[in-house]
Amino acid sequence: MTSARSARRGRPGHDREDVIRVGVELFNEQGYDATSVSDLTNRLGVTKSALYHHVDSKAQILEIALEDALGGLEDALDAALRRATPAERLTAIVEGAVSVLTARQPQVTLLLRLRGNSDVEVAALERRRNFDHTVTGLVREAQSEGLVRADLDAGVATRLIFGMINSLVEWYRPDGPVDPELLGREVLAVALDGLRPRD
Amino acid sequence: MTSARSARRGRPGHDREDVIRVGVELFNEQGYDATSVSDLTNRLGVTKSALYHHVDSKAQILEIALEDALGGLEDALDAALRRATPAERLTAIVEGAVSVLTARQPQVTLLLRLRGNSDVEVAALERRRNFDHTVTGLVREAQSEGLVRADLDAGVATRLIFGMINSLVEWYRPDGPVDPELLGREVLAVALDGLRPRD
Repeated sequence: MTSARSARRGRPGHDREDVIRVGVELFNEQGYDATSVSDLTNRLGVTKSALYHHVDSKAQILEIALEDALGGLEDALDAALRRATPAERLTAIVEGAVSVLTARQPQVTLLLRLRGNSDVEVAALERRRNFDHTVTGLVREAQSEGLVRADLDAGVATRLIFGMINSLVEWYRPDGPVDPELLGREVLAVALDGLRPRD
Repeated sequence: MTSARSARRGRPGHDREDVIRVGVELFNEQGYDATSVSDLTNRLGVTKSALYHHVDSKAQILEIALEDALGGLEDALDAALRRATPAERLTAIVEGAVSVLTARQPQVTLLLRLRGNSDVEVAALERRRNFDHTVTGLVREAQSEGLVRADLDAGVATRLIFGMINSLVEWYRPDGPVDPELLGREVLAVALDGLRPRD
């Protein structure tokens, strides 16, 4: 209770989390560069000084949201790397990434649409590249164990799998009929065994 | 020769195609809303009046680029629909979409990042939805013929396939080592048979 209270600054009805949430919403709707501080205060219905009570700048909102997305993906990767076998590691990263993406959809959407137009964006893109690089290593390891076709470039295979996963930001609806856990298993099943029926 | 000449208006060294190409480049770099007419003239190194000699507005550049992307995808779909069997139709639309995407990557990138903030964008998103709807019909038909797992929702299957295809805009490099025709066949093979090796 105490820590939740102390994290809550400013006027009643608007805490820092609201500011981040609405900021991410606006960035995804109209783009980060095209979103002004006035857009933020208008949507929130607060003054600029109330906004600056919660965050230092528009860039800080972006930074916090990207940390949510990247931190989540990196934690999922760390957890996957601790699994015992290549098959388990590959399964864990696919299911883990789907889980982060469905739980933090607005933040991951923002991450995937970054263009690298500021230091914050460049740093986030660098972390995303490191993530991709490590996952490509997991796919390569799965190839050498015979779990994944070895005639396909590991980088291409990784990008096709993550193409499926990342497309979720465009169409996954938290209130829709598709359960996120089931979805993680389905994505993995389609990635490994394809859409053709098996006997 | 005559029609190529009459399509070419304005100062030597800059024709309409350059204006469209540079416009799409800027929209993809910094977002359509954040791109000003001054950004366009600066990048092109022309005056505003020279720019308006080629196009009526920033919105017209967007409209032309989206027509390139959507027109290409719709033509590929029409060609697929003329094929004789469900398997041929599904193959044709996957390979056709990959072909359009690799040939018109900047324009498709723009299409995929649309947010619907103007009439032009809303109309394009409506055409994209119609395209998706027809492709979902092709996947459903492939399910009823036993070519695609029937236990998966046709809409989800379509989105997973197009997630792989659309991810190409992020990483396909026209000058890279991956041949677009081979890529179309690979995407289809991965979508249908997965990444697991087959005997």
